Amino acid sequence: MFNHDRHLQFQAKPEKPDALFAAKLQEILGGQFGEMTVMMQYLWQGWTCRVPGKYKDMIMDIGTEEIGHVEMLTTMLARLLEGAPAETTEKAVAANPVLAAVIGGMNPQHAIVGGGGPLPRDSQGVPWNAGYIVASGNLLADFRSNVAAEAQSRLQTSRVMNMTDDPGVKNMLRFNLARDTYHQQQWLLGIEQLIADGYVDHGIENSNFDEENQDHNHTFWSFGADSQAGEGRWAQGPSLIGGPDLTYLPQPVALTDDTALPPPPDPKLYATYDGSRGPGKTGDAAGAHAQGMSNVVKKVKDALE
Amino acid sequence: MFNHDRHLQFQAKPEKPDALFAAKLQEILGGQFGEMTVMMQYLWQGWTCRVPGKYKDMIMDIGTEEIGHVEMLTTMLARLLEGAPAETTEKAVAANPVLAAVIGGMNPQHAIVGGGGPLPRDSQGVPWNAGYIVASGNLLADFRSNVAAEAQSRLQTSRVMNMTDDPGVKNMLRFNLARDTYHQQQWLLGIEQLIADGYVDHGIENSNFDEENQDHNHTFWSFGADSQAGEGRWAQGPSLIGGPDLTYLPQPVALTDDTALPPPPDPKLYATYDGSRGPGKTGDAAGAHAQGMSNVVKKVKDALE
Amino acid sequence: MFNHDRHLQFQAKPEKPDALFAAKLQEILGGQFGEMTVMMQYLWQGWTCRVPGKYKDMIMDIGTEEIGHVEMLTTMLARLLEGAPAETTEKAVAANPVLAAVIGGMNPQHAIVGGGGPLPRDSQGVPWNAGYIVASGNLLADFRSNVAAEAQSRLQTSRVMNMTDDPGVKNMLRFNLARDTYHQQQWLLGIEQLIADGYVDHGIENSNFDEENQDHNHTFWSFGADSQAGEGRWAQGPSLIGGPDLTYLPQPVALTDDTALPPPPDPKLYATYDGSRGPGKTGDAAGAHAQGMSNVVKKVKDALE
Amino acid sequence: MFNHDRHLQFQAKPEKPDALFAAKLQEILGGQFGEMTVMMQYLWQGWTCRVPGKYKDMIMDIGTEEIGHVEMLTTMLARLLEGAPAETTEKAVAANPVLAAVIGGMNPQHAIVGGGGPLPRDSQGVPWNAGYIVASGNLLADFRSNVAAEAQSRLQTSRVMNMTDDPGVKNMLRFNLARDTYHQQQWLLGIEQLIADGYVDHGIENSNFDEENQDHNHTFWSFGADSQAGEGRWAQGPSLIGGPDLTYLPQPVALTDDTALPPPPDPKLYATYDGSRGPGKTGDAAGAHAQGMSNVVKKVKDALE
Amino acid sequence: MFNHDRHLQFQAKPEKPDALFAAKLQEILGGQFGEMTVMMQYLWQGWTCRVPGKYKDMIMDIGTEEIGHVEMLTTMLARLLEGAPAETTEKAVAANPVLAAVIGGMNPQHAIVGGGGPLPRDSQGVPWNAGYIVASGNLLADFRSNVAAEAQSRLQTSRVMNMTDDPGVKNMLRFNLARDTYHQQQWLLGIEQLIADGYVDHGIENSNFDEENQDHNHTFWSFGADSQAGEGRWAQGPSLIGGPDLTYLPQPVALTDDTALPPPPDPKLYATYDGSRGPGKTGDAAGAHAQGMSNVVKKVKDALE
Amino acid sequence: MFNHDRHLQFQAKPEKPDALFAAKLQEILGGQFGEMTVMMQYLWQGWTCRVPGKYKDMIMDIGTEEIGHVEMLTTMLARLLEGAPAETTEKAVAANPVLAAVIGGMNPQHAIVGGGGPLPRDSQGVPWNAGYIVASGNLLADFRSNVAAEAQSRLQTSRVMNMTDDPGVKNMLRFNLARDTYHQQQWLLGIEQLIADGYVDHGIENSNFDEENQDHNHTFWSFGADSQAGEGRWAQGPSLIGGPDLTYLPQPVALTDDTALPPPPDPKLYATYDGSRGPGKTGDAAGAHAQGMSNVVKKVKDALE
Repeated sequence: MFNHDRHLQFQAKPEKPDALFAAKLQEILGGQFGEMTVMMQYLWQGWTCRVPGKYKDMIMDIGTEEIGHVEMLTTMLARLLEGAPAETTEKAVAANPVLAAVIGGMNPQHAIVGGGGPLPRDSQGVPWNAGYIVASGNLLADFRSNVAAEAQSRLQTSRVMNMTDDPGVKNMLRFNLARDTYHQQQWLLGIEQLIADGYVDHGIENSNFDEENQDHNHTFWSFGADSQAGEGRWAQGPSLIGGPDLTYLPQPVALTDDTALPPPPDPKLYATYDGSRGPGKTGDAAGAHAQGMSNVVKKVKDALE
Repeated sequence: MFNHDRHLQFQAKPEKPDALFAAKLQEILGGQFGEMTVMMQYLWQGWTCRVPGKYKDMIMDIGTEEIGHVEMLTTMLARLLEGAPAETTEKAVAANPVLAAVIGGMNPQHAIVGGGGPLPRDSQGVPWNAGYIVASGNLLADFRSNVAAEAQSRLQTSRVMNMTDDPGVKNMLRFNLARDTYHQQQWLLGIEQLIADGYVDHGIENSNFDEENQDHNHTFWSFGADSQAGEGRWAQGPSLIGGPDLTYLPQPVALTDDTALPPPPDPKLYATYDGSRGPGKTGDAAGAHAQGMSNVVKKVKDALE
Repeated sequence: MFNHDRHLQFQAKPEKPDALFAAKLQEILGGQFGEMTVMMQYLWQGWTCRVPGKYKDMIMDIGTEEIGHVEMLTTMLARLLEGAPAETTEKAVAANPVLAAVIGGMNPQHAIVGGGGPLPRDSQGVPWNAGYIVASGNLLADFRSNVAAEAQSRLQTSRVMNMTDDPGVKNMLRFNLARDTYHQQQWLLGIEQLIADGYVDHGIENSNFDEENQDHNHTFWSFGADSQAGEGRWAQGPSLIGGPDLTYLPQPVALTDDTALPPPPDPKLYATYDGSRGPGKTGDAAGAHAQGMSNVVKKVKDALE
Repeated sequence: MFNHDRHLQFQAKPEKPDALFAAKLQEILGGQFGEMTVMMQYLWQGWTCRVPGKYKDMIMDIGTEEIGHVEMLTTMLARLLEGAPAETTEKAVAANPVLAAVIGGMNPQHAIVGGGGPLPRDSQGVPWNAGYIVASGNLLADFRSNVAAEAQSRLQTSRVMNMTDDPGVKNMLRFNLARDTYHQQQWLLGIEQLIADGYVDHGIENSNFDEENQDHNHTFWSFGADSQAGEGRWAQGPSLIGGPDLTYLPQPVALTDDTALPPPPDPKLYATYDGSRGPGKTGDAAGAHAQGMSNVVKKVKDALE
Repeated sequence: MFNHDRHLQFQAKPEKPDALFAAKLQEILGGQFGEMTVMMQYLWQGWTCRVPGKYKDMIMDIGTEEIGHVEMLTTMLARLLEGAPAETTEKAVAANPVLAAVIGGMNPQHAIVGGGGPLPRDSQGVPWNAGYIVASGNLLADFRSNVAAEAQSRLQTSRVMNMTDDPGVKNMLRFNLARDTYHQQQWLLGIEQLIADGYVDHGIENSNFDEENQDHNHTFWSFGADSQAGEGRWAQGPSLIGGPDLTYLPQPVALTDDTALPPPPDPKLYATYDGSRGPGKTGDAAGAHAQGMSNVVKKVKDALE
Repeated sequence: MFNHDRHLQFQAKPEKPDALFAAKLQEILGGQFGEMTVMMQYLWQGWTCRVPGKYKDMIMDIGTEEIGHVEMLTTMLARLLEGAPAETTEKAVAANPVLAAVIGGMNPQHAIVGGGGPLPRDSQGVPWNAGYIVASGNLLADFRSNVAAEAQSRLQTSRVMNMTDDPGVKNMLRFNLARDTYHQQQWLLGIEQLIADGYVDHGIENSNFDEENQDHNHTFWSFGADSQAGEGRWAQGPSLIGGPDLTYLPQPVALTDDTALPPPPDPKLYATYDGSRGPGKTGDAAGAHAQGMSNVVKKVKDALE
């Protein structure tokens, strides 16, 4: 259950409105790595976290903080949009020619859809969607995603900050930068804590490790004749998880003579086929037997007896 | 420019078809963290990489490898779908009742749209989209995204592998697991190499660091009364980037008395407003001056003279 | 700023797991009218509300409640998914043939993507997106959208509730039904309050009413020869906003002889055209004059002088 | 079956082209609440309406009218785009500097994709999608959605109308405003008719009402310490559906001590877990029994005997 | 303007309901090549067609027919869904075990969202979107798209028809097949008519032909060492548009020594860069001059004088 | 498996940067018919092609070429964006007023998201998605889609080329135009080859032809009273596939007296219904029998015995 405090976590007051900048600021609110993304990603990870105590609490705490960051940005945007041109274009242009440029760069949805307020969309108007987030239940994999989200988010915030001179906006963005710096550390230290607590052996996701093909988990394949990729640390030296040293494969040969031909098609699907490999299997009951279910009827019978 | 070798990098042959499993396997081909995602993410990062030599070559090499992984999965899927039920449901069910279950769990688009072949979609039929990928030009931030993508991808591959007993499928997935293990290392070592080469000081994205608010980049804010989040390494001990130690804020108070009220609205936008804070600024030419452009006309004039 | 209480608003405990039902329950979490929609819709309306006091507080209160409803549903889903089949299909089917049906109807992403947890998606796996919500700044229009959202949401909850016999699930859904009943009232009474407080004259959105064509705001047009639509209250009796009575137009004739022909095309755009109406205007500087800007240069000059 | 009359329902002729305004006008054609939305929403509701006579006919009539409204807007847009700049930018700018602003604000897809014609997209270029509409088969819930759609649509039309001075455009938009005013009434009166005809008792969707939790369907929960939401009509006075008066809960306490912990995870899904609550249930055949199917085998057997 | 006739163009009556088949039938209603796609594609092409008379009328006629096809499919779907399982799963399964399979394969949104009616979505539940359609204003290019849409649509209809034995469904689909056969011809003959009427010289879209690179418009490039692609007609024989014969390039060499390096980056964007090619240009006013606008100020001045 | 050659297929060097044009150029990279679409469409068709030899090789060859075209466009875009305004807007505008227009028309994501590089999006910022492509396994239907994609792509390239004077950009686009000309031919000749090789009888997709309704596959239906569509070749003359001549139906009458009423609804779904046609079938086990499964239990029993 959540509660709401009417005050913002940090002040969100521009010195003056700026509709052009508002269009850009949308990116770090409703974009792929905007505040909506980290808010939803952390809340979902918190709700699905199965480790009570410090892990679940930490994730819920930051998820709750991020709701407040979305709140700060929506407030800032409404203030940046104050007095943005919403009336007849031509008349306005006549009075102030430079206004034409502002009108060109404004996001018309800020007026038409948002009524002078923010939008849950990115700087190009694409609505936020849940395909941006992840909550897998595996804390190592998810913390890796979180470090990445904070790094991209901080980078975009830096870029956006250079696009304004407004001291009020800059003041808030300096706070956002600081939180992104801290939060990157938080997730990296979360991985260290997972190791310290014995949940994982190292920082590499390796579920089902024993099943993994051990010949191909330490080799760099190079697919360009003049590639210099072999010079990097990733192509030589010890592996991060023990075992053989990393190896560079400069002129790789396909590991198989399989030429990737799909099987003869079911004639009822009308795929084009020359018959050279015999007739396709029809997808009827007979085909179903080929689906590996042929002996299930017997098992059903056995189970029922 | 690219070239194509007719052979697969690694064999993609199931022992027998399995249309139910094919529906699930789509996730690691066309899902949020499927092979299409890493293929497109790395190619785009390679094309936008501005550091010639080992970095650009490494990224292009792995991007090129991933096209081949998409190829392996599409081939495997066409083979898993051989003989999948495509004819009248009822008749087939009559011949083999258990088939009903197969039909229930099959993806009908495999027949109707793909003609017995794979789809560029996830296991629920959602088409792949470019909102899944990132290529920011900043190698640190992007390598972080790449580690995360490989970790999530490997986790999903592990989960999918437990859903089949087919030795041919398992054989290919063991190869995929191995590549995901190596590629996680590759991107982590890429970050180490960036540090070694002096591009970044440490693994934390910190562009515009001097502008950052230094009071708030080392504090954990806790928003739950009974949170135990303060017990983790992320709430204590030295910062990863120097400066003050990490600090835990157990009962945070808003840093401002700003109650998040948007400004009075432009009356032409018909937002609901009680007038308590005076009339809204109309978004006409006069409003445009308030947009920070008031003195630009003079500057235009100056520039033109 | 928000705070989090570790306890759920209302209990979310199924008597026993049910993976098939979990797939359906996703609809009222991440669907078009699921809890994510009302949570985001109300928070955004609250953040953009310009009327301090009871209106803004009411909207923020319900938005905050809805975050907790998303929390209840995510918890319920993780519990419904306990022990859901995640291993090899065939083996499982052998042990329990009816399981085949369960496997057919399960959402494979619950295992592969969510690790046995909920997804921010609808019952068909489509990710939630912000195109579902609205926050226009106009409280009348938005309260209308909110009544509709609660009505659809309650209807879907009713339908879903009939798909389970689990007393724990039903207990929670009875609470959800109750809140949806109350919230429908809340928004309808919000409209009454807007009228009582003098923000609007009646419940019809009528911004710019004086500009409106007064001949066509009280007529029902019927476009079917045998339509019986004229029998309804909407086609007769007093208007809800005063003025002439409602009227039924049984055999409407187009109000214009305009045959909807687009103008001759710009030849540089290669649209197909027969030249019958003269050459198209080219979209160069000359064309720009036709764009209504012809006299702006003069005005720029005047403004600068 | 449908027929087409070559004439527009109402004239759609701008006095002169205006490419900048055309970009904005797209919102009320292909946006969330544009004419495509109401056209598709009403047609789908008509096709799924199960009440022959005045209801089904009324819905089909308005759906058919809205196809004509899409036609009016597409025609208007093609005319507004006449002579829009489609040639080399720099050359055009040289001849007419103010044109630069027009070019900045134009939608490039109007030329590149539409060939000087309209697009089935919103004012930011996002393609229309069917996630915007609803047709639930329940006329009360759907009429509520329709009132909301007309209110939002009318509001956006009002806002867009203030962005032009063109008398031809304004003339058409005045007609659109009038239809939106009437159509809001039509749907509200449709609800009154549903009550008069005995389909529903009142305007609140209350399917499955007897199952609903009667303690929580008349209470306002406040989640902010200083919230003034209790002052509104929604927090006091008689309920709209009978029963206890509405009540205000100023300091709500969670109704449960459930701390939202998901169950121990299936180890085959590799979710992070500390083992504190025992081992997770594996999702195999044994797990399937826990899925509530344990006794179905017996029932199958019984049914077959 | 449109009118509606209450009767269906062709009967849409299944012999009996079939919820499993209904889920599949959605593909040819709301899928990429479903009836919604051709309906919207043709209406939009008709509205943007600039050639009055037979072309515009033909396109409007078929667009109007397709609205009726959507109507037929929505009606058929509602009838196929009659009596589909909407109640508690377990109870139903107990009474009829095979029902479990039906439940597994049903689309739950048919009950929860559509109330037993059709959905504007494909067979996997993805909402229809306007990114599927095209209306470019160029009749040759658009007729090509229309032939393709009818061919894919017919193919999918064929595949779907094999999935049912219901004589009522088959009867309607036989009509749909026939219309798709005719409509493929219609668009191919539309291209012949365009040639006969002199709008185009041949069936190849060749706007701006004189600007085209004449060395590379008749060569097949082969990028695989063992490719047999040179054996096809596309790699030899006369060109369809005159000029040199078609040619096969078996071992192509890149036409440039350009190694695809992006320029040095703007330091304010924090892209990773080694400085090897000098400092990046900063994107300030100085950078703007490099944007090709350097001489516009002068031209503005000239124009204003 | 694929290999990468560091050199571009064709040079991609603009004479000078141009951020405004870069925003437009995105359309032919990441739009509905951009290079990403043809790259992915052909690769997927190649992977699913079941005819070894010249067909599969031809498709893989062109798919591989198109990866290189995406590479050319991404490189061109990074170069066009060199020195694009990324710093404070107002300061830049002060130094160069015309810059304001550039800023208005720039795509802010080019700086914020791409770091001065290209985006996998269209000219309006909509991310590319796999709903644009098709790979059905039926070469005739797919080649038709490919001709259409090349025609639309060439048309858009022509339109974009007229929007720049940069000789370097024009040089590359001339190459793109040439390839699109050739590739249109390639797919048309591919259809001729399919006919020559006996895979199809003619260019009309006619799977399941014998099942098709032979009365309605050669008639043009006209739905407008004053339509002139009967004058075209599509309404008269011999059919392209033999059989009766094409026929024009000027005043079509519905072929059925079916008035499109859905059946009585399941009461558990709460659809509005007047009971005039008796009670709806409830979707329980009894309903399931009506689903055409009534006799399956017996068959299961038989099969098991």
